[in-house]
Amino acid sequence: MSELLNTINEPAQIRKLRRSELERLANELRAFVLDSVARTGGHLSSNLGTVELTIALHYVFNTPYDRIVWDVGHQSYPHKILTGRREAMSTLRQLNGLSGFPCRTESEYDAFGTAHSSTSISAALGMARASQLKGEKRFSIAVIGDGAMTAGMAFEAMNNAGIYDDLPLIVILNDNEMSISPPVGALNRYLARLISGRFYAAAKKGVGQILSIAPPVLKFLRRMEGHAKGILVPATLFEEFGFNYIGPIDGHDLKSLIPTLHNLKELKGPQFLHVVTKKGQGYSLAEADPVLYHGPGKFNPAEGIQCVPAVRKTYTQVFGEWLCDVAEQDERVIGITPAMREGSGLIEFEQRFPNRYYDVGIAEQHAVTFAGGLAVEGLKPVVAIYSTFVQRAYDQLIHDIALQNLPVLFAIDRAGLVGADGATHAGAYDIAFLRCIPNMTVMAASDENECRQMLYTALQQSGPTAVRYPRGAGPGVATQKQMKALPLGKGEMRRKSTQPAGQRIAILAFGSMVAPSLAAAETLNASVANMRFIKPLDEALVHQLAQTHDALVTVEEGCVMGGAGSACIESLLAAGIHCPVLQLGLPDNFIAQGDPARLLANCGLDSAGIAQAIRQRFLAHATENLGAPSAPELIIEKTQESIVL
Amino acid sequence: MSELLNTINEPAQIRKLRRSELERLANELRAFVLDSVARTGGHLSSNLGTVELTIALHYVFNTPYDRIVWDVGHQSYPHKILTGRREAMSTLRQLNGLSGFPCRTESEYDAFGTAHSSTSISAALGMARASQLKGEKRFSIAVIGDGAMTAGMAFEAMNNAGIYDDLPLIVILNDNEMSISPPVGALNRYLARLISGRFYAAAKKGVGQILSIAPPVLKFLRRMEGHAKGILVPATLFEEFGFNYIGPIDGHDLKSLIPTLHNLKELKGPQFLHVVTKKGQGYSLAEADPVLYHGPGKFNPAEGIQCVPAVRKTYTQVFGEWLCDVAEQDERVIGITPAMREGSGLIEFEQRFPNRYYDVGIAEQHAVTFAGGLAVEGLKPVVAIYSTFVQRAYDQLIHDIALQNLPVLFAIDRAGLVGADGATHAGAYDIAFLRCIPNMTVMAASDENECRQMLYTALQQSGPTAVRYPRGAGPGVATQKQMKALPLGKGEMRRKSTQPAGQRIAILAFGSMVAPSLAAAETLNASVANMRFIKPLDEALVHQLAQTHDALVTVEEGCVMGGAGSACIESLLAAGIHCPVLQLGLPDNFIAQGDPARLLANCGLDSAGIAQAIRQRFLAHATENLGAPSAPELIIEKTQESIVL
Repeated sequence: MSELLNTINEPAQIRKLRRSELERLANELRAFVLDSVARTGGHLSSNLGTVELTIALHYVFNTPYDRIVWDVGHQSYPHKILTGRREAMSTLRQLNGLSGFPCRTESEYDAFGTAHSSTSISAALGMARASQLKGEKRFSIAVIGDGAMTAGMAFEAMNNAGIYDDLPLIVILNDNEMSISPPVGALNRYLARLISGRFYAAAKKGVGQILSIAPPVLKFLRRMEGHAKGILVPATLFEEFGFNYIGPIDGHDLKSLIPTLHNLKELKGPQFLHVVTKKGQGYSLAEADPVLYHGPGKFNPAEGIQCVPAVRKTYTQVFGEWLCDVAEQDERVIGITPAMREGSGLIEFEQRFPNRYYDVGIAEQHAVTFAGGLAVEGLKPVVAIYSTFVQRAYDQLIHDIALQNLPVLFAIDRAGLVGADGATHAGAYDIAFLRCIPNMTVMAASDENECRQMLYTALQQSGPTAVRYPRGAGPGVATQKQMKALPLGKGEMRRKSTQPAGQRIAILAFGSMVAPSLAAAETLNASVANMRFIKPLDEALVHQLAQTHDALVTVEEGCVMGGAGSACIESLLAAGIHCPVLQLGLPDNFIAQGDPARLLANCGLDSAGIAQAIRQRFLAHATENLGAPSAPELIIEKTQESIVL
Repeated sequence: MSELLNTINEPAQIRKLRRSELERLANELRAFVLDSVARTGGHLSSNLGTVELTIALHYVFNTPYDRIVWDVGHQSYPHKILTGRREAMSTLRQLNGLSGFPCRTESEYDAFGTAHSSTSISAALGMARASQLKGEKRFSIAVIGDGAMTAGMAFEAMNNAGIYDDLPLIVILNDNEMSISPPVGALNRYLARLISGRFYAAAKKGVGQILSIAPPVLKFLRRMEGHAKGILVPATLFEEFGFNYIGPIDGHDLKSLIPTLHNLKELKGPQFLHVVTKKGQGYSLAEADPVLYHGPGKFNPAEGIQCVPAVRKTYTQVFGEWLCDVAEQDERVIGITPAMREGSGLIEFEQRFPNRYYDVGIAEQHAVTFAGGLAVEGLKPVVAIYSTFVQRAYDQLIHDIALQNLPVLFAIDRAGLVGADGATHAGAYDIAFLRCIPNMTVMAASDENECRQMLYTALQQSGPTAVRYPRGAGPGVATQKQMKALPLGKGEMRRKSTQPAGQRIAILAFGSMVAPSLAAAETLNASVANMRFIKPLDEALVHQLAQTHDALVTVEEGCVMGGAGSACIESLLAAGIHCPVLQLGLPDNFIAQGDPARLLANCGLDSAGIAQAIRQRFLAHATENLGAPSAPELIIEKTQESIVL
């Protein structure tokens, strides 16, 4: 089944194959990708689409000396398999296993780490300029999808690259007419016109011949063509940017790909190759529904994905239902997503409120300022966005929304660790980077119903708001149809310690950490507050807990540095209240992929970890008492604390 | 001189003028702008360039019902003058005066606040969609410069707008071949081709006639033209994005502008009008050197700007000199600016090291990831960027640089309050949003020589680094030619209190706050540490000071929430050290324009304010002792602090 593939442990071995063997390699590679993803889960559609392109690139170019930057990188499995990681694919997206994205620490063939979209041209341009400065003769190749091309960053890079005449940069547009959600925007329409036009028809028929012409002749033809462009034939948009445009060609046809890439190497200056591929190519179920097969869990390839009804609602679903409910009540409500219709739970909203649904493409910056434009006209925009992608619109959030105090609601999904996607997608910093911005109201949901009520609360505000909630399912609290605004800036007590004075601990828990904190508190007989608001913080509650307890513990699924716990201690010290405080949260390092529960446990953010950290810090004889359920035996170890005043 | 202008207190009055009077109004307005900016300082070149366009827009459109969004907004002075703020122009960019940018709280004619570049199309698109949803018949107009068009965000908006057929959106490209620095990039080349081509020649000659044709005929002609485009005539890049492209036309010719704008109102769908203007138009000195006259201080219009040698070096100059010095020693050093050559002090570097100088356009995202591409190839990129603009590349800094631990140096200028530019440009948040990111090293310079040595220290690191320094001149410390790396994560004591136990205060000062802290410490006989590093924090020093003093004060020119002071208290509480701490820094609100020293004083961040805050918080009889130089009389008021443990 994988006889030929099994002989390939590095791309140099591909280059030794006969051209006629490459097709067989492609077939084996495609089968391997399907089998591997079906076993581990992961990205499928995009990887089935890049099988031939990956083989052709490694066949024609001298990797790793030549650099390939895979934009987004979820299409890089064939690349991983061909660059010495075939067997490790069974560990994909698992703890201590292969990353689901290119990763510089994983392989010298991964020239640049990617995962967020639209970075590849910038990075490859940097590499290309570096090679020129260093006098090295290498190519830098960015492989970018049509979805990723809609992000402004890609255009910033094109605009910059287009001025360098001899730049050894090749941009390969992998046009599969698809970001994760179906494509939107003018650029996609434009690409479709290019494909449907005579360009493509001509290319499809003649490309084998045309591009196998010897380079000197080709150069002459190209110069003629360049001369002609703008007079008889419309120049493409990419040529307006200073690139030489070639294509579109069939990205599943090695007979087109290989000679075209060979000839590209002979051309001077930035090259733009338009390759048309099909997401899910070769696996009929994925071809038919590439969105469903974008990032499946484990499945049986013979049966395809079986829709098993989920046991518990995800926060994403809670948000999607809420948005439909408020949109029904209030026609000013608008839903906005930067190309994450499925991931953000907006499928039903789009169907029911098509005029108020905006998928703006992979364009977080625009999404936010567009929301600002709607807000100044009295509408109520809701930006559904992952925590990690808020980072891409940070200035817009500050400069266009917060500074003008506009009522834009940020529904922040995937806040905290995200599991298999790993460090690139972790929502670890939003608490720290949002709470320092004036005018912001920031909440963290501790269960499904609270999430719904917080979203509703946020929608009532006259300024910018953010509600953060984690990936996946919550603790299983049923949502109440009725919506009622929560009191602004107020937390709630969830458990009261009955320990005697001198032994009382209060846990100040934020969002997803309320549930494990409650469990930990049972073993310690500690108090637990569900803080609800990061900003405005319930300072009165923080102070009161400090004054009625012997130690405080803050717990959040976000970075400790500058996080919600820091808000608590800032408030305590400003009020001159001194109380031992333990801050628990995500550590100051990037956390790679793995099972979400396991990752949280590794960070000490499960109930056992929280209890253990509290014992270690505050309780005497911590070692002996580990796991002891009898909290009253434990005495707060005051001597550990050094009191100045 | 301003007889006609003085009669205009709102745009409705312009609409009552005869067309023949508009030219006179333009002359008076131009003279007023020049006179006004010469008296107050402010942006000049760009405002001289928009005189006629502003008159034409308010004449043709029904403002404020129709919305005008001025991209960047530093070209909006004529707009301010014509919309009831003529007399208030004498207060421009001053405390409690007019903002130098459009501001929603200032006037109903300021449809959207701007200042950072390239937001206008997104905002106007939001407004245009809102008017459609609400069934209102208004136009939303974005006026955007050719420099601002290079930012990806503008393309994200174009891509999104181009799909709406009936969208009442007009984008006016104000093409003056200039961002603040001269233009760069492929788009600028493209625009130059458009202008030099037959399009423009034809338009210049015939536009008066063609565009005064009755709309139905015009529509027919346009349809024909649309049909023809892509076959005989190359379609413009903007048409590929779904816009109807008109132009280029002369933006100083009211006879072209007014009929064109009138006719635009009759066309359906998103319109793109290419207007060519000249920065500095009508003032020969500014026409000759628009960069010099971009944002001058006060000057005599008859004499022009007189170059007075600066008394003290600015931090920007210190950086520029340093970069040249290290570039001479190490050929791997690369300088990168997102369109801020002058502002970032890179003029000499560009001249001396043209191959290693990159002005990438207004494209912060690309600037950072491009630096990442250079760094993986072993080069040493230095990104010169204002604090407020780091916000625009936050994800790139996290995802492309910090996560991959790449040695990119961020030279962060304008960190802290910036004065006349106001809230939009304040560098208030970088400490909070940078220190929470793993792998970052963050320093704050307290004087010119320390800035130089910190930059050198940063360049030696193997991971990402940031050195922040404020706008303008430092305390006047001469820079030493020799460069020596500072010990990583170590602060230094600058003053030791000789107060007896029970009365000892230590000030932990960061960056620009070291000088005023030292002055404040004189009156209080307090200790002062120059902390130097925000990350890694000198925790040993913080702990030692807490243990040898009775109270600590942290002082930083950055937001208190999550800032450097919070890093100190996080460390103290983690170590179980309890000490009263007062955190001083920027408050949790946006701070409008004004004299920088005055603004800092208003925030309590001058020496008097620091001393007063310390007295109020910690010292008994604070009221009576205000201003008292005799520190030994003061006793730390312990009863204010409530100690739990």
